[in-house]
This record gives sequence, C-alpha cells and structure tokens, in this order.
Amino acid sequence: MTDSLFPLARLDGIVGLAAHLPIADAAAADAARARQNSLTKPPGSLGRLEELAIFMAAWRGTDRPAIKTAQALVFAGNHGVCDQGVNPFPQAVTAQMVANFEAGGAAINQLCRANGAELSVIALDLDTPTQDFTKGAAMSEEDCLAAMNRGAAAVNPLADIVLLGEMGIGNSTIAAALAAANIGGDVADWVGPGTGSDAEGIALKTRVIEAGLSLHAGQSAMQSLATLGGREQAAICGAVLAARAAGIPVMLDGYICTAAVTPLFATDAALLDHCLVAHASAEPGHALLLEAMGKDPVLRFDMRLGEGSGAALALGVLRSALECHNGMATFAEAGVAGG
Amino acid sequence: MTDSLFPLARLDGIVGLAAHLPIADAAAADAARARQNSLTKPPGSLGRLEELAIFMAAWRGTDRPAIKTAQALVFAGNHGVCDQGVNPFPQAVTAQMVANFEAGGAAINQLCRANGAELSVIALDLDTPTQDFTKGAAMSEEDCLAAMNRGAAAVNPLADIVLLGEMGIGNSTIAAALAAANIGGDVADWVGPGTGSDAEGIALKTRVIEAGLSLHAGQSAMQSLATLGGREQAAICGAVLAARAAGIPVMLDGYICTAAVTPLFATDAALLDHCLVAHASAEPGHALLLEAMGKDPVLRFDMRLGEGSGAALALGVLRSALECHNGMATFAEAGVAGG
Repeated sequence: MTDSLFPLARLDGIVGLAAHLPIADAAAADAARARQNSLTKPPGSLGRLEELAIFMAAWRGTDRPAIKTAQALVFAGNHGVCDQGVNPFPQAVTAQMVANFEAGGAAINQLCRANGAELSVIALDLDTPTQDFTKGAAMSEEDCLAAMNRGAAAVNPLADIVLLGEMGIGNSTIAAALAAANIGGDVADWVGPGTGSDAEGIALKTRVIEAGLSLHAGQSAMQSLATLGGREQAAICGAVLAARAAGIPVMLDGYICTAAVTPLFATDAALLDHCLVAHASAEPGHALLLEAMGKDPVLRFDMRLGEGSGAALALGVLRSALECHNGMATFAEAGVAGG
Repeated sequence: MTDSLFPLARLDGIVGLAAHLPIADAAAADAARARQNSLTKPPGSLGRLEELAIFMAAWRGTDRPAIKTAQALVFAGNHGVCDQGVNPFPQAVTAQMVANFEAGGAAINQLCRANGAELSVIALDLDTPTQDFTKGAAMSEEDCLAAMNRGAAAVNPLADIVLLGEMGIGNSTIAAALAAANIGGDVADWVGPGTGSDAEGIALKTRVIEAGLSLHAGQSAMQSLATLGGREQAAICGAVLAARAAGIPVMLDGYICTAAVTPLFATDAALLDHCLVAHASAEPGHALLLEAMGKDPVLRFDMRLGEGSGAALALGVLRSALECHNGMATFAEAGVAGG
C-alpha cells in the first residue's frame, strides 16, 4: 500500500490513509525503555532525553536507534494574500532569503552545520504566488497535490530523521488561517505579529483571514490546504506523509510548520504520531495549537524565525539523547550498585 | 588583585570581593547586540539564542565570542550526614560513579563528547566523608578553603566556558540545607526526592536539615558553606570564583550546583553575574531557587541526574547560538531587503 501511495492523486485519499501506514513499534519502545532503566543513572533522571530516545526507538523499529543521516528540508513559497497588505515586507524577500540559504548565510545554515543536518532548500514557484484566498481558492486541488508530491519526493528514504522548515513572506497569515479552519476558535487567537506586524497589521490580518474562512466555509480539512494554504504548507504535508511511509520520524519546526499540518491533524490525528514539534514559538497562537494537537515541544526559546531553525537546534538535543541511550554503561557493565 | 586571589585564605575574604573581579563588558555586549540586529533575520527572532550570544560577548569581552575550549568539571564528594539515613544508596556509589566517569560509561561522558566539552573529574577525599552536620560543622574553615582552592585550581584559564557538575550520594540533602540557610523559607520547600527518596525519606531529610540549621544558626553565608556544605559544593564555589577572575563564563548544571553557590549569592549576588544555569531540574526546590536568584535556566527537560549532564546539553545550545552569531550574513552582505 505505502509503495503505491506516491504520487498522491486525490486530496480525499488522505482520509483513512493512517491505517495503511507504519505505526510505532511497541516492542522496540519497550526494549528501549528497559535499556534506559538499566543504564547508570536513576531511572527517569534524564527526563525528556529518555522520552526522545524511546520515541526514536519506536519509530525506527530498533531498541538502539541512531542518527546517521539527518535531512533538513526547507520549503519556500509565495502567497497571493499578500495583495491584501498583510505583511510589511515585499514578497521578493522570499527569493532573497532562498538565495541566502543557498549561499550559506542564514541561521538555518549555521544550525544545520552545528547540529549535523544535511540541508536542502526547495523553492516552490516563487514567481507564481498562489491566488489571494479572499478572492478564490489559493490553489486548485491539482496544484495542491503537485506541491504535496514535490514535498514527498524531497524526502530522502535513507534519512533517520527529517527536519521540516519553511520560508514565505506572508505565511504567518496562512498559518493562522489553517489553524482557525482546522482547529476552530476565534481567528484573533491565531493571529500574531509574525515578522513585524503592529497592532493595526494584526487587525488587518484577522479581517483578511475571516474573509477567507467565510468564502471557503464548509470544506473538508484537506480542501482547506488547497483553498487557504500555500505551496510550502502543502509540501510540508507531503513530506510528513512520505516520511511516515518510509518509517522516518519528523521534527516540525515552529508555528508555521505546526499549522501547516493541521489539515492532516483534522483529517486523522494519527497521521502525525511520528512527528515531534521542535520548539514553542514566540508567535502567540503556537501554544494554543500545541495544546489542541497534544504536542509537547522539545525547546522553549522564544524563537520566531522559521527556516527550520528550531528543528535544527532540537536535532542537537535528539543527538545527545541517543548518545546517552546508546553509549552509556549499564549498572551491570559498570559495577555500580543500585541498578 | 585577582592575581593574588588564589589560594583563598579566609572565608570572609569573599565579602567585598566582587568589586575586584572583572565585570561584563557593556561595550562588547552593545556591539554584539548591534551585530544581531544586522543579521538576516527579524531582530529578536532567534529569541534566547540571541541573549546567549550577547551574554558570551559581554563576558568574553568581544563582539564575536567563540568557544574553542569548553571545560567540564565534575566534583565528587561524600557526606557525613548520610549517617542519618538520608539516602537509599550507599556512599560507595560515589566512588563507583567516579570510576564510571573515568571509564567513559556515564551520561556526562556521552554528553561531553556529543557537545564538545573536555571532561575532568575531581574526586575530593571520597574515603573521608565530611562530618555529619547534625553533630557539628561538616568542614572546618581550613578544610572548606582547601576544597574551594582545589576547585579554583581545576579551572583551565584558557577555557572559553566552564561547565560545572557534581556527584555525591546524599548531596540533595546538602543542597536543601544550603538553600534553606542562604535563601530562607521552610526547609520542606527545598527538600525533594533526590535520587529516589520516598515520602518518609523526604520527611527524614527535612528533620535532619532542620536539626543542622538549628545547630549552625546565626552564621554568615560563607560559614554555611563550611558547616552545612560538602567538598564538592566548596569546590564549585572556588571554580566559580576562579572562572570569574579569569573572565570565563560558567554554566552551572542543576539544583545541586545552583544550591552550592547560594553562599556566594547570599554574600554578594554579583559574584554570580557570569553564571548561567543550564536547566530547570525536576527536583522541586530548583524552581524556587532559580526565582530567588533571578536565573532563567537555558533548558527545561525534567532532568535530575547531576554530573553536569544539563550543563553539557546546554553547551550544544550555546554553540548553536554562537554559530548563528558569528556565521550568519548581514542584510547588507546578503542583499536581502528589510535590514
């Protein structure tokens, strides 16, 4: 089943898909938990590091998971809704930042080097922004599937973990729209300053999103990805599914990435069981979103950059977790009392 | 003045010492802040990573601080108060864990390797525990100064950062006693499970500490280090002062390390201005202590192992912060609009 999953042919094909995808390996998780309890430390004393090691064991299907290859994918897109003036920066900045990624000058470049991730940047038709979602669907179903399939195809099936990030001027508006459509609640709760909006800008973003939600009311969660989303959001969803099909856990970055997968969450929360969220963003809607989705972020550093920056930073923590898990002596090996 | 500081000759010589020690370089911090605001990201969007880079700039006295040498020091000691039955494990475990550190089998070994720290383990007279503080002073002033001077002498003056950790069966009792003596409040607020005490054990620890505080009432903060502390606590205080004298910032690990420096804090809070706290321990007193001391921990991972494990993990984050600070392109360099 999973071999024939890609390319994805229909948005509503996602419904019921989870039943055909790999699930966490409970036996590997149990074996990893038993190993943690045999290592030379009080059981549980490495806190979240122990949980992360067990999570990796469950999704890699081995009691001794390792990260040989960490792939970082940063998807970039432009958004027609910027015509509504929702962002103080011109859309040209998206391509300028992609050039900066390619030249090695951005935060994500330094963080991937420091934490051992192989970075690929995928610019998605930056010269052809999606449509303004207040005027019609941002993307046709066909366009949305094409972006999802580009995201899926970018995943290295030999990776041990995939980090997902994004760049796109205006995409904090896209994030808030997707969160509001798929989680519910007041639009204002999902809207924050993004990259530099003031109170007036935030009020404008809120009105624009309300207009979009009104125009596209009554749609399925996966349809919302096409009508309100952008290409980088669709690519992130595609990469999440492709990683799952290949048995690779995913580290989502921050608010934009978490919101990007709300169409999958609202379709079937189990589609995200293999996903960690790297950090709690300073963008105020993120805390609400994490709570609604039951995800406990790895880091809380008040970051709000995107690019996958939080995911790359969290990779370092994950590597430390696995170094402890695989490298520590057991009580028996070390001759320490109390094991 | 700082050249003649060590060996320390009198505990009350710490009073007034801060005025003779290096302080943060405000000009370097300002230059680092200006650099952060010129880099290709929205100002402030790297959150805590920006603060950490600016902190390092201030204490290293340069706008482009780097970590070439990170030194991890783990001090180990044994405690006479264990005669009161405050710990479920025998004191022999301290030496067994030191042997495990030396053999490379402990969490701290893996975390130092993963995050690039050079580890030194200093066992402090493990065969001669301090005295039971419910019966008399744990250490004489002379013994306490000797341990402080061993800690000070262990600091590599060429290090760019010093990570401090500890190992000592019974030392969560020492930590609670020092916190109660130097911060105040109810003893019970400072006592937690440590390495596996149950409710009865916690009640016993509380009574034992109350007895110690009663016996040693009315002493100065630095005297409390001798009467209630242990050799590893004294060594940590000595290392903190030696690092400060050498202009080296310090990463304190968790609850035990933070409590170890409360005698310095209560003497003069400025003595700890160059110290970060790596993580918020799962030990319940740590949150109170961090609040009282005005320290915001780098990580919150529910760890409670000690050994410097949190400090080594936080080093990875600090390295990432400096990689971004030093390696990113400025808006002008990258030709990105909005700088």
